[in-house]
Amino acid sequence: MQIADFETPVLLVDLDRLERNLSAAAEYARSHEIALTPHIKTHKSVEIARRQIAEGAAGLTCAKLGEAELMADAGFTDLLLAYPLVGEPKLKRLTALARRATVTVALDSIEVAAGIAEAAERDGVTVGILAEVDTGTRRCGLPPGPELVSLCRFLMGRKGLEYRGLMTYQGHLQGTAEGRAPLLADEADRLSDLYALLEREGIPFPIVSAGSTPNQWEMHRLPGITHVRHGTYVFNDRNTLVMEACAPEECALAVAVTVVSTSIPGQIVIDGGSKTFSYDRLALGGEGFGLCVENPSLVLSIMNEEHGYVDVSQSERRYRVGDRLHFIPNHVCTCVNLHDTFAVHRDGQVEGVWAVDARGRVQ
Amino acid sequence: MQIADFETPVLLVDLDRLERNLSAAAEYARSHEIALTPHIKTHKSVEIARRQIAEGAAGLTCAKLGEAELMADAGFTDLLLAYPLVGEPKLKRLTALARRATVTVALDSIEVAAGIAEAAERDGVTVGILAEVDTGTRRCGLPPGPELVSLCRFLMGRKGLEYRGLMTYQGHLQGTAEGRAPLLADEADRLSDLYALLEREGIPFPIVSAGSTPNQWEMHRLPGITHVRHGTYVFNDRNTLVMEACAPEECALAVAVTVVSTSIPGQIVIDGGSKTFSYDRLALGGEGFGLCVENPSLVLSIMNEEHGYVDVSQSERRYRVGDRLHFIPNHVCTCVNLHDTFAVHRDGQVEGVWAVDARGRVQ
Repeated sequence: MQIADFETPVLLVDLDRLERNLSAAAEYARSHEIALTPHIKTHKSVEIARRQIAEGAAGLTCAKLGEAELMADAGFTDLLLAYPLVGEPKLKRLTALARRATVTVALDSIEVAAGIAEAAERDGVTVGILAEVDTGTRRCGLPPGPELVSLCRFLMGRKGLEYRGLMTYQGHLQGTAEGRAPLLADEADRLSDLYALLEREGIPFPIVSAGSTPNQWEMHRLPGITHVRHGTYVFNDRNTLVMEACAPEECALAVAVTVVSTSIPGQIVIDGGSKTFSYDRLALGGEGFGLCVENPSLVLSIMNEEHGYVDVSQSERRYRVGDRLHFIPNHVCTCVNLHDTFAVHRDGQVEGVWAVDARGRVQ
Repeated sequence: MQIADFETPVLLVDLDRLERNLSAAAEYARSHEIALTPHIKTHKSVEIARRQIAEGAAGLTCAKLGEAELMADAGFTDLLLAYPLVGEPKLKRLTALARRATVTVALDSIEVAAGIAEAAERDGVTVGILAEVDTGTRRCGLPPGPELVSLCRFLMGRKGLEYRGLMTYQGHLQGTAEGRAPLLADEADRLSDLYALLEREGIPFPIVSAGSTPNQWEMHRLPGITHVRHGTYVFNDRNTLVMEACAPEECALAVAVTVVSTSIPGQIVIDGGSKTFSYDRLALGGEGFGLCVENPSLVLSIMNEEHGYVDVSQSERRYRVGDRLHFIPNHVCTCVNLHDTFAVHRDGQVEGVWAVDARGRVQ
């Protein structure tokens, strides 16, 4: 069976490229003695998680509890939940999960930590904790300072919890390769200051987990990083391409679509819109919702739910109804989450269909 | 059970509001002798489709074949597929569908029509066809002119097809209520010119199907409309609110979320991001990804996949981890498509959990 036999729109995974991406990240981590705990939010696939572990990953990272439960069901036993868990229903699920897997939760407040500690003590389990530190993304995480010190002290002293170290996120180190270099140097300074503060206060940090696909090859330049948990690297996407963080031949996922209308001059309509690609714009700005593999001069300029409007006015080639095209999505993680399966191929020969097992697990 | 017992993030449907929205649209259609064939892409729910038919809908509209197959499985027998179908696998599925339901397909090219005609003749079925006309959205549809006339002639003469009339889409009539009024007048002129052209050419148009939630109460002002197929009206959303096309108490769907972090001053983080809300921006422009029901001064200003960054700097109220909030999404159709279920309630008392049956049916 050939990929051209699949109906569109459909996600196509180039298995050779995926395998190279998995191996390269594993090899980088090994050579720098950094543990890789890849984030499964990108692929949400048991099969890809299995390959990541086979390549030497030290565990898996999940955003939501439902993702972690699914990965535990599949037999994975070392899980970082990089998300604060709040409310009794989630705490019950967390302690049940902690009975069958080694679970570490990242959080940034004593309120969240106290809730987990109470539930853990009551249910007779221990939950590992990373204190989340904000080094500039301004999302979750405490800035280095007295509140962070208090949180770490609380974590170190509280029954039911096992303080394991720090989690940081490098979402703010964005830009082209040249633009990211000075940002990385600043980040290194911030981390050194953070460590100095904690050392002065007598607070250990055996784990320092960092996350950033665009900077995945530079993480050893940040001091003290023991774990990395990037996710997007398995497939890459138009964002990582534009950031010069991957080469075109490292883009392992494309969306196959079909031209369904050519009624408007200078435009074609494809059978994928925002329910196929997701509405994510380029993180660095710029037009369009995907990169056409066959013809980069095409601009997927507008989307409705099931219609993609492609501006073909800069193309010499004329397109007809029924033509098939492939687009690399702007943001592969939200794109994958719209689909139930990937078609997996080598050089166009289909090797299988894999499930997006944890699709939609927002709770 | 109360809605507060549900874990977040979760979609909540206010059943009283939903019922009022369904009844009002049905009553409008009845009083103006226009057939309502609501678009199920918004809710993708068999239960809501059943209620639409019970209120007098003349049939259902679907975007993708997979949606139509699911609705046929549920027993609905009059289906408009408002989408050009291309390629042998889809044509086979279409003729199978036409054996168990009355199917009408909208298309804008002789290529697509010829493909359907061949498959229909081969498989011994008849497929109804609407010729799609572009009156200004510039998506699919032929502009009024000789190519449209040729298409209609082809449809009228071809075995396997039954030409049933025209489909138009009013996606270009956007703006606030005041801004839409002159656009509607222009659209009426364009439709009159279209009809005059077809009459001169001796081409009948027993059906003229129009689509537009923002203008749902004005469709009788457009000449010759026999069918309307809006979808968003069942729930409405922040887009329809901003367009002054619905009142706040006509917004029947909200996303319940929980505050999980308050680590950054002036900001809270909620447990829903682009995998909960979708990344759709407001159609008319403007900031934010949802309207906070409890406090409209909050701005859901940035989203990552599972994190919503809410700017609370304009609010007097201080928020704490664990607080629960409700947001009306910018675009309800893409938001619903990210979820497997709705929790349905009256005044906060849960009446049931309904499936988003056709979620993800992009093929």
